[in-house]
Amino acid sequence: MDRTRRAEEAIGACSLLVGYGPYLDSIADLCAGRQTLSSGMRQETERCRAALEAATEGAVVGLISSGDAGVYGMAGLAMEMAAAEGFAVAIEVIAGVSAANAAAAQLGAPLMLDSATISLSDLLVPWETIVERLQAVAAADLVVSLYNPRSKKRRHQLDDAAAIFRAVRPLTTPVGIVTAASRAEQQVVHSDLGHFLDEEIGMTSIVIIGNRSTRLIAGRMVTPRGYY
Amino acid sequence: MDRTRRAEEAIGACSLLVGYGPYLDSIADLCAGRQTLSSGMRQETERCRAALEAATEGAVVGLISSGDAGVYGMAGLAMEMAAAEGFAVAIEVIAGVSAANAAAAQLGAPLMLDSATISLSDLLVPWETIVERLQAVAAADLVVSLYNPRSKKRRHQLDDAAAIFRAVRPLTTPVGIVTAASRAEQQVVHSDLGHFLDEEIGMTSIVIIGNRSTRLIAGRMVTPRGYY
Repeated sequence: MDRTRRAEEAIGACSLLVGYGPYLDSIADLCAGRQTLSSGMRQETERCRAALEAATEGAVVGLISSGDAGVYGMAGLAMEMAAAEGFAVAIEVIAGVSAANAAAAQLGAPLMLDSATISLSDLLVPWETIVERLQAVAAADLVVSLYNPRSKKRRHQLDDAAAIFRAVRPLTTPVGIVTAASRAEQQVVHSDLGHFLDEEIGMTSIVIIGNRSTRLIAGRMVTPRGYY
Repeated sequence: MDRTRRAEEAIGACSLLVGYGPYLDSIADLCAGRQTLSSGMRQETERCRAALEAATEGAVVGLISSGDAGVYGMAGLAMEMAAAEGFAVAIEVIAGVSAANAAAAQLGAPLMLDSATISLSDLLVPWETIVERLQAVAAADLVVSLYNPRSKKRRHQLDDAAAIFRAVRPLTTPVGIVTAASRAEQQVVHSDLGHFLDEEIGMTSIVIIGNRSTRLIAGRMVTPRGYY
């Protein structure tokens, strides 16, 4: 498992664990003997408020994210909400292995050099802003890890992103797709910029698009550091 | 410690551990009872070759990086060298907590949204390429984590990077500096775009420059997700 010893130790000191149901299920061994409070997707603010309320009342609370809580996770929301709603609690962030890093390790070593991380979800960020970022990153030849690439209702964003990268990188540029990274049902697919839209890609997928140096070495996606 | 259970288990299966001396020292408990081979800085290729040679002869070898071996680490070099020099060995990459993620957790939650990771070392990448990337990332309002920001001999790169960001972001933009992240001697400094060059910054520092939304919340650096 990708979880860190530091996270395990911190959870060991908690009296209450709060999180999205499947995240708590994935640490069932650590939940045993502790109070837990789970909730569904898109209930981030309720979950966060419940955690802050319990902490205010004296509980040591673990607010569980998948990957790294500081990357599209709950860490920032907890700090924002504590300040905005006046919860006087101490908040510690425990770093984790982010989904992009976990995906990269499965693909090979695509993130060896400079890279960017961009979410294609336009629920909270205007789509025009995301397009500007994709264009800047594509032109600057950065490897990119795309979070939230596609959902059932959200299809055009990944098509648009592909078009932006196809305009400036060869269609043979390696593209890796890892779905459910570090979980039992994990899927790893190697494709390229010309073909990757044909693959199965969903909300739990990370799509990594190589730069002009990235290549397949013995079937693995590698961005060479330049020793060779 | 930030090390993962997966890494500990993998090391448990190794007969030989190879790495830069201080990295092996930091996992002394896992080195006990195992053969080790340490070497100095800038001997990456020799270290990697020794690991591959031992693996070819049948050893199960752990090639130890700090942070995430797939981010400016040894993973890519091992794959490149195995292919280029004909070592027929199986290579598995174990993802870790990258230095940027570890630094972010100490600062607050600056990497909650889209961000980029750029190394200011121009040993292997032309400085003009790095400047182009900094300019693109600055203009696209991405939070940026700078690796290898400064060394004793390399001073102008961080000054130039600061100038690029000062041209497009307010001088009050939060900047966080974490030196020796996750180690006993760790230092955490909060500054801003106008003043951060005055701080002590070295080769083991990560400098995180916020975007136009990043702000200090109760003394922590947070890039809000937009719930508030």
